[in-house]
Amino acid sequence: MPEQSVGIVTPQSHHFAQPIELACGRSLMQYDLVYETYGKLNSDCSNAILICHALSGHHHAAGYHHENETKPGWWNSYIGPGKPIDSDQFYIVSVNNIGGCHGSTGPKSINPETGTPWQNDFPLLRCRDWVNTQRELMKVLGIQQWAAVIGGSLGGMQAMRWALEYPDEVRHCVVIASALKLSAQNIAFNEVARQSISSDPNFHSGYYMSHNVIPKQGLRLARMIGHITYLSEDGMGQKFGRELKTGNFSLGNDEVVEFEVESYLRYQGDVFSGSFDANTYILMTKALDFFDLAREYNDDPVEAFSNATCSFLVVSFTSDWRFSPERSREIVDALVAARKPVSYAEIEADFGHDAFLISNERYEKVFRAYMQRVAGETV
Amino acid sequence: MPEQSVGIVTPQSHHFAQPIELACGRSLMQYDLVYETYGKLNSDCSNAILICHALSGHHHAAGYHHENETKPGWWNSYIGPGKPIDSDQFYIVSVNNIGGCHGSTGPKSINPETGTPWQNDFPLLRCRDWVNTQRELMKVLGIQQWAAVIGGSLGGMQAMRWALEYPDEVRHCVVIASALKLSAQNIAFNEVARQSISSDPNFHSGYYMSHNVIPKQGLRLARMIGHITYLSEDGMGQKFGRELKTGNFSLGNDEVVEFEVESYLRYQGDVFSGSFDANTYILMTKALDFFDLAREYNDDPVEAFSNATCSFLVVSFTSDWRFSPERSREIVDALVAARKPVSYAEIEADFGHDAFLISNERYEKVFRAYMQRVAGETV
Repeated sequence: MPEQSVGIVTPQSHHFAQPIELACGRSLMQYDLVYETYGKLNSDCSNAILICHALSGHHHAAGYHHENETKPGWWNSYIGPGKPIDSDQFYIVSVNNIGGCHGSTGPKSINPETGTPWQNDFPLLRCRDWVNTQRELMKVLGIQQWAAVIGGSLGGMQAMRWALEYPDEVRHCVVIASALKLSAQNIAFNEVARQSISSDPNFHSGYYMSHNVIPKQGLRLARMIGHITYLSEDGMGQKFGRELKTGNFSLGNDEVVEFEVESYLRYQGDVFSGSFDANTYILMTKALDFFDLAREYNDDPVEAFSNATCSFLVVSFTSDWRFSPERSREIVDALVAARKPVSYAEIEADFGHDAFLISNERYEKVFRAYMQRVAGETV
Repeated sequence: MPEQSVGIVTPQSHHFAQPIELACGRSLMQYDLVYETYGKLNSDCSNAILICHALSGHHHAAGYHHENETKPGWWNSYIGPGKPIDSDQFYIVSVNNIGGCHGSTGPKSINPETGTPWQNDFPLLRCRDWVNTQRELMKVLGIQQWAAVIGGSLGGMQAMRWALEYPDEVRHCVVIASALKLSAQNIAFNEVARQSISSDPNFHSGYYMSHNVIPKQGLRLARMIGHITYLSEDGMGQKFGRELKTGNFSLGNDEVVEFEVESYLRYQGDVFSGSFDANTYILMTKALDFFDLAREYNDDPVEAFSNATCSFLVVSFTSDWRFSPERSREIVDALVAARKPVSYAEIEADFGHDAFLISNERYEKVFRAYMQRVAGETV
C-alpha cells in the first residue's frame, strides 16, 4: 500500500424500502445505494463529508478494493490520511448515485414491478433526486449535518443543490470545476454523445439487455468525444504532440492508427465501453443538461443562493474549457451578491476539466487550507 | 438576383488523360476536375485567382446554379462584383478537388481499371496532390501565374503549399483561419469523426456502394461533431442559448428533443449526411491531419517559407478555437523570420472557425484592401 492511502476499502450497500418521489413525477418504490466510507465518524457526528461524483464516477473514490488493484479510487489524490480531505480528521461518505451502473439502483437493476431490468424505462433523474437519496443515506448513517458536501463538475452541481434544498444540513459547500448551468456548447457535446449511443444498431431504443447485446461502439464514440473535451488543447499537445505511432507518413493503409492520440482515444473508448452502461450515460448527461440552479428561483442565482446558510469554496482551472473559470466566476459573483461567505481559487493547470482529479500543488494547498478550517470547527 | 452577385454560373469539367503521380506513390491514370470561373481573364493573363476549398467545400463558391437556388455558393459573401475578391477585376477559378464528391474524380467515381467505383480503394491524398492537379487545370486555362492563391482552413494549407512548391507561379498567397499543422486536439476530433463513420454497420469497410447503402448515421454524427467545433462557445450561446424546444423541463419522454441546439445539430447532420460522401470525408480529414508544412524542410517553417517568393496575407478570428489566432501567428512569425512580406489581421468575430465564411466589416475591409493591391499589379 502506498503511504497516505485509506488502504483496502469494502463497498457497503443499503436497501431503502420506502418509496421516493422523483422530480419527474414518478417514484422509485425501493432502491439500493452502494457507498464507501473512509475515516471515522466522531462522537458528536460533526465530521461527516459527502463526496458527490460526476458523470462517469461512482462510490469508489479512494483506496483499493483489493491488494492487486492497480488503480485506486478516482479521487485518491485528494482523499486519504494527511490529504486535503483528510480521513484522519473526517468521516467521508462516497455514494454511487441512483441511475448509476456500479451497484446502486439504475437502468441495469431489476424493476420489482416487472421482474425484468428497467433499462430505458428507468425514470429520468434530476440533480435533486440524487440529493434526496443521498439524504436518505445520511439519516441511515446517523448524520444530522454534513461538515461539507464536496463535488467536481456534475458533483459540484449536487453540492450546490444541497446548499439550497437543505441549508441547515450543510456547513460547507465545495464546488469544483462546475457551473450554474451548462452552455449551449456543452449541451451540444452531450447531445452528440447521446446520438452516438442511440444510433448504434445494438441500442434497440435502450432495451439492449433484452437482446443480449450492448451498444459498445456507440458508447465508445461517446467516451472518445468526452475525453477530448475533458482535456485541454495544450494538455493534449503536451501528452501526445503529433507523435506518429508508425514513425512515418506513408499514408499507405488507412487501417493503421497513425497518431498516438488516436491510439489513446481508441483505448480509452474501448475500456469505458466495456464497463459502463449506455442508459446510465444517457441519463447522466440529461441530468447535466437540465441542471439549472436558479430555474426555480426566477432564473436569478442571487435569489437562489440567498437560501444558503453554509460557506462556499469554489475552484476552477485555467485550461478547463467545458467548465471554464468564467462559469465558476458566475457562481462566485452570485454568492457575493447574495452576501454569502465564499473563497475562490482559479488554479493554473494544463489538463482541462480533468485537472480537478489530478495532483497540483496550488490546488492541493488551497483545498487543504479550506478543509483545515472545516476540520477546526468539528472538534 | 441580388446585387453584387456573379449571377447564374455553370460548372465546367475537364478530363485529364495524362496520369498523375500522387504523394502516396500511387498514380491516377486519368481524372476529371469540375470547376467554376467568375470574371474574365485579362489579355496578359495576369488577373487569375485560385480559390482552394476546405474539408466539406466544392467548386461552387459564388453565384447560383439556377434561378431557384435558395443558397448561393459557399463564399458568396466575398466573391462577386465589388466584393473583396472582385469578379470585375479578377478571373476567379474555383475547383472541386480530386477525392471530392461533387463531380471531380473521387471515391464515388468509376475506377477505369476495374469498371466499378473506387470507394475505399481511392488513393489517400495529401495537400500537394491537390496543388498538382490544380496546376494541371491552370495549364489548360492558359494561366502562367496566379495573381493570388486563396484559401481558408484546409484551403489555406493548399495556398501555402502552392507558395512553396511553385514559387514562380504565385504572386500572392492568402491564408485564412489556417495552421502550419493541426494540433493533437484537432487530430482527435477528426479521429472521432472517422470512427463515427467507420463504426456505422453500413460502412462495410468503405465499400458501402457495393452494398447499395450509405453510412448515413455515422456521417451525420461526424458532421454534428464538426459543427460544434466550427462554432465558438459564445457563438452557440448567442445563437441558441439554452432555449427549450418544448418550452418546459418535463423530462418526460427522452425521444423529445429538448434544446434548440440539439434540433439544429440533428438538422445539419441530416442534410449533410444526405449529400456528402463518407469516403471523401475520411480522405479529407486524413489530408488535414497529415498536413505539416515544414515536414520536408527539417521541421523548420522558416526554412520552408524561405522558398516562397510571393507576398502573404494571413487572417485569423478571435473566437476560432480549432484554428486559433495562435496558429496563424505561428505562420506569420515564420514568414517574418524568413523575411517575406506579410500582412496579418486578427479579426474580432463571434462565430468561431465558421467566421471565415461570414460577413464581417473589418474582415471585408482588410481583405478588400489587400486584394486591391493585388489588382493594382495586374493592369
